[in-house]
Amino acid sequence: MTQLIQAKEGIITEEMREVAINEKVEAEVIREGVAEGRIVIPANINRKDREYMGIGSGLRTKVNASMGASLDYPDMECEKEKLQAALDAGADAIMDLSTGGDIDQIRKNTLEIANVPVGTVPIYQAGIKSIDKYGSVVEMEPEDIFNEIEKQAKAGVDFMAIHCGMTLEVLARLKNEGRFTDVVSRGGGFLTGWMLHHQKENPLYTQYDRVLEIAKKYDVTLSLGDGIRPGAVVDSLDRAQVQGLLISGELVQRARKAGVQAMVEGPGHVPLHHIETTIQVQKELCHNAPFFVLGMLVTDVAAGYDHIVAAIGGAKSTWAGADFVCYVTPAEHLGLPNTEDIKRGVIAARIATHAGDIAKYGERISKSDLKMTQARVKEDWQTEAKLAINQEKVLAKKKLNEETEIRIMNDKAEPMKIVAEYL
Amino acid sequence: MTQLIQAKEGIITEEMREVAINEKVEAEVIREGVAEGRIVIPANINRKDREYMGIGSGLRTKVNASMGASLDYPDMECEKEKLQAALDAGADAIMDLSTGGDIDQIRKNTLEIANVPVGTVPIYQAGIKSIDKYGSVVEMEPEDIFNEIEKQAKAGVDFMAIHCGMTLEVLARLKNEGRFTDVVSRGGGFLTGWMLHHQKENPLYTQYDRVLEIAKKYDVTLSLGDGIRPGAVVDSLDRAQVQGLLISGELVQRARKAGVQAMVEGPGHVPLHHIETTIQVQKELCHNAPFFVLGMLVTDVAAGYDHIVAAIGGAKSTWAGADFVCYVTPAEHLGLPNTEDIKRGVIAARIATHAGDIAKYGERISKSDLKMTQARVKEDWQTEAKLAINQEKVLAKKKLNEETEIRIMNDKAEPMKIVAEYL
Repeated sequence: MTQLIQAKEGIITEEMREVAINEKVEAEVIREGVAEGRIVIPANINRKDREYMGIGSGLRTKVNASMGASLDYPDMECEKEKLQAALDAGADAIMDLSTGGDIDQIRKNTLEIANVPVGTVPIYQAGIKSIDKYGSVVEMEPEDIFNEIEKQAKAGVDFMAIHCGMTLEVLARLKNEGRFTDVVSRGGGFLTGWMLHHQKENPLYTQYDRVLEIAKKYDVTLSLGDGIRPGAVVDSLDRAQVQGLLISGELVQRARKAGVQAMVEGPGHVPLHHIETTIQVQKELCHNAPFFVLGMLVTDVAAGYDHIVAAIGGAKSTWAGADFVCYVTPAEHLGLPNTEDIKRGVIAARIATHAGDIAKYGERISKSDLKMTQARVKEDWQTEAKLAINQEKVLAKKKLNEETEIRIMNDKAEPMKIVAEYL
Repeated sequence: MTQLIQAKEGIITEEMREVAINEKVEAEVIREGVAEGRIVIPANINRKDREYMGIGSGLRTKVNASMGASLDYPDMECEKEKLQAALDAGADAIMDLSTGGDIDQIRKNTLEIANVPVGTVPIYQAGIKSIDKYGSVVEMEPEDIFNEIEKQAKAGVDFMAIHCGMTLEVLARLKNEGRFTDVVSRGGGFLTGWMLHHQKENPLYTQYDRVLEIAKKYDVTLSLGDGIRPGAVVDSLDRAQVQGLLISGELVQRARKAGVQAMVEGPGHVPLHHIETTIQVQKELCHNAPFFVLGMLVTDVAAGYDHIVAAIGGAKSTWAGADFVCYVTPAEHLGLPNTEDIKRGVIAARIATHAGDIAKYGERISKSDLKMTQARVKEDWQTEAKLAINQEKVLAKKKLNEETEIRIMNDKAEPMKIVAEYL
């Protein structure tokens, strides 16, 4: 019994209750949202001792941190450190995208250590295994993919990015319009290569019912992968991208009918003035399925600072209706993120979603800003630190100021003080 | 003869020509914009050997970096370093806000070293002198302020933040509505203290014609200071703030009539959903005077990361019509910025204005993004570095990748490669 099936039957589950408490709304609001598919609660039935979190309309916008070992960096301890850094920085969910090292063990560690929902992209491991087994990703057998999905579902993964909507129809539109960046999604690339090599339709599309069956069995929330997302702002909102969304919308409806929770992934590289349209089109075409965006990245010229680029896009997309934002680290477009990059990425994304949520929800969210303001007026550093998105910086600076006996401003020239004497 | 007077007379000046070349528009477009007051070219007649830069509608949005010595940090060499860091990072203008050390000499250095427009806030030095002379800011004589303005104008300062619109009427509205943060502008605070202490109107308002006279003589561009800007998102768009804008609008008209170039300063702390309104109200009330915003800061809870907070607000405000964006450094709300903070602040603001300009101007601006995309597809690191907002990061990472013989992704699993074989 998935959360969706229970919600449709009018049952308020323990998971829904926990989400309702965290969001400070009535449990019935959550049940209704889940029943209508506007809210998902990624909660694999095989995963115990963890916290539940809801994603969707009316809820605080959540931040995902993706990480994972690779062939070049297979170290497991390093992955644990990165995971801990993301959790400490306040990530609401973790995606393990490992493509190297002992992938099964790393996933197991992540599921054990993290108290938040954990997601994966099963085709990554299927692809890597295929390289080992057949020498190439494109020789992968459809059975390999389904086996991998089932194995990871059984292991307790809460949500999975699966690129079921990456079809020959989408590729035809990509080809006939042309695009600067072709396919930048890794999962999308694996499947595109496979489809073109075999001249066959994407098995995750033709056998979507099998995907639904597995997802239903373990209550895995589908994150319908945006395999065709543009890789540059100049490619935003082209026909291939919108074709992909059309198909995702159809897949969302089928998932809901099957009792499977589903959200939809979106770009990626989107100029600021395309964000609202991108989200509105998705929400309409996919019947208000929760939207999981990557970034969004509003310019391509700031390699090394893409966490800032994504903060701009993340705030605007949160405001426009994105429900779940994947962080971007300063290492994006340059290499793999280290622990510090991950921390910075999570904090930047949390700033973005908070700023966007103030615009989306108003005073319900800006209460923490009001408390901070009151603490600032009182010069109450301790409260300021407690309320800060990362208190380290506030405390470090306070310590430095105290040590050097330096005040932020000279008292006699401090405007708030001068005015306070009179007002 | 100010740029404005010449523009009104149909004269295209050398300065206008230089601005037109940089902006890739016809010189007549610039002349017309200056004549109508929609564009300013801060260009003090006493300052030579420098570059000219335009601020206003239709032009690339510019970034200002403020810095300055203080009583606690009076070191002149340190100021030179900070200035150089800001210029190297690509600041379009510098404001010297020194309130400590040898202020005259620091300003002289700034005017000599910087090739970009330089601004000041004369009341800072007047206030500091007043503390020395009378023991308090509020004992300042109006003559002290005018002398300071004239002295700095003569020295070659291109634009000055002067809080002529901070009036008793504004204070009455502040008092009758109430506000969490009262007055956070330093210049605004000095004048508020002065007005309340003497129970007299702001001399910069009552003797505004004297301000105009000096500005006209040296072609100093007035930056009408936003002394009443809110200090927290919860205070945004209150009656005091809008009252201040009404008065600024009247002062803009008087400046234009007097042949003085003028822009208007704005907040500050503005939630994302107030930005468009804030800018539209300013543009209407002030007859499309260029808008110089501080940030904008879209949340108060991210001390230590306010450059990111300001990047979110800076991008949105640029898109909504801001013409000039003052950077915010990671040290904001914590202490004084060091050289590294200044660099980070400038880069974050440049990312923000670029992202906003893509939305504001479309393909004219996103050409650099297209070039970057083409370089990425070709894996042409050198071009990528050249196009990057800060090439250091790209080159450092490239070097690291080469040294460790690590590629960003394993070739066999690289989606673009797989797809490229077939498409």
